[in-house]
Amino acid sequence: MNPTIQNQLNHRSIRKFKNIPLTSEEVNLLVDVARHTSSSSFMQSYSILSVTDPEKKAKVAVIGNQKYIAESGHLFIMLADQHRNQLIAEEQGFDTDVLGSFDRFFVASTDAILAAQNILLAAEAMGLGGVFLGSVLNHADQLIELFNLPKHVVPVLGIALGHPDQAPQLKPRLPREIMHFENTYPKLENVCEALKDYDAIVHEYYDLRDANNRVDEFTTQIAKGMTRKHPGRMQLLKFFQGQGFIQY
Amino acid sequence: MNPTIQNQLNHRSIRKFKNIPLTSEEVNLLVDVARHTSSSSFMQSYSILSVTDPEKKAKVAVIGNQKYIAESGHLFIMLADQHRNQLIAEEQGFDTDVLGSFDRFFVASTDAILAAQNILLAAEAMGLGGVFLGSVLNHADQLIELFNLPKHVVPVLGIALGHPDQAPQLKPRLPREIMHFENTYPKLENVCEALKDYDAIVHEYYDLRDANNRVDEFTTQIAKGMTRKHPGRMQLLKFFQGQGFIQY
Repeated sequence: MNPTIQNQLNHRSIRKFKNIPLTSEEVNLLVDVARHTSSSSFMQSYSILSVTDPEKKAKVAVIGNQKYIAESGHLFIMLADQHRNQLIAEEQGFDTDVLGSFDRFFVASTDAILAAQNILLAAEAMGLGGVFLGSVLNHADQLIELFNLPKHVVPVLGIALGHPDQAPQLKPRLPREIMHFENTYPKLENVCEALKDYDAIVHEYYDLRDANNRVDEFTTQIAKGMTRKHPGRMQLLKFFQGQGFIQY
Repeated sequence: MNPTIQNQLNHRSIRKFKNIPLTSEEVNLLVDVARHTSSSSFMQSYSILSVTDPEKKAKVAVIGNQKYIAESGHLFIMLADQHRNQLIAEEQGFDTDVLGSFDRFFVASTDAILAAQNILLAAEAMGLGGVFLGSVLNHADQLIELFNLPKHVVPVLGIALGHPDQAPQLKPRLPREIMHFENTYPKLENVCEALKDYDAIVHEYYDLRDANNRVDEFTTQIAKGMTRKHPGRMQLLKFFQGQGFIQY
């Protein structure tokens, strides 16, 4: 078993940090790791925003409704970014209509998300910890304004990092056979029944984590999750379209 | 410097493979690495398809217009998957309208893409090599049919893996200062001028790789790339909407 895979199999999200900011050397190394990630057609259609201003960090925490964002040792926001490429093309007299396609939004966000995973894993390998923040999508419009994002730039994922001040258990994942298929997508039936053992394992995990805080089984979490309709998240398409993305 | 970060900084895409298929132990380990990746709200809204049928693999290679897909030692296709969760919720009598939101498509594809990066890096750590295949988006409609993907399941990224039969140079990436910002998105101007040195470095890289095959500088690649409008890719939104995603 090699150390990279050991790191990957040991991943836990960390949401409680010591009050120690990351050094600029650490931040630069993480950005370098991001830079060496694959990108679609070598277009590198993403950028990284470091939020070090405590007021802006606090605002992201309020928007995301996650106090630990403000307390993290470093906050990255990964941006799908076609603005830089648009300027390059325009300076050379090329038309950039294609940036309105869903495709060009999607490859840009894919670049940003691949780089995000590399950043988090590198941080974990350095003995740091962190958590992805889908909550930067809660009010994409507010983040766009807060960070002055130009057209064809949107936030896609945040990463809160820091020196861990907790040591959570490994969270049990879906069994392989219900998420890894060969050559064709199988007909799934009676999924709750098929996941009975997994439900019990998840329940035990939550019980061990905090016996006083009764948490649902996996399938119940999923079912109830369908009722979660954050007003900002339900307008995400509109906010991204307002940035010039996903016109067709 | 630790080995995980060394692996990350040494990433090269591999597009030429020895004729050795991955073992089932290797495939299972890579799937386990994927399973331990973070997922949005613990919903694990993604699945992994292994394409081992040589005919189907050849078809993916034709659709992607990349011969090396057929010659790879293993082919994964990462799926944004809300079908399993939909079944779970329906079995419990919950409404699943929310799956039509852009948000629920986007978190599912993010889950799949984060896991993809972990798979590629784990493969590299094992001495294998590989390349991401955005080309699975070329004709998403054809892949949906080929793999019998139900509603709320779409391909988002392929990964061709294998034993490397080439040793490419490290590809030079955009300089940090043009893609990593602090607290606000800066006003970018004269980007081509700012990237003059980088253009020269990229040009030298291609020259060393193959002096006979004249390749553009970075900024010229980006500009010309704006004219690339693959007919299937320009319909990607329509294909994903046909699967029930991104209705609003």
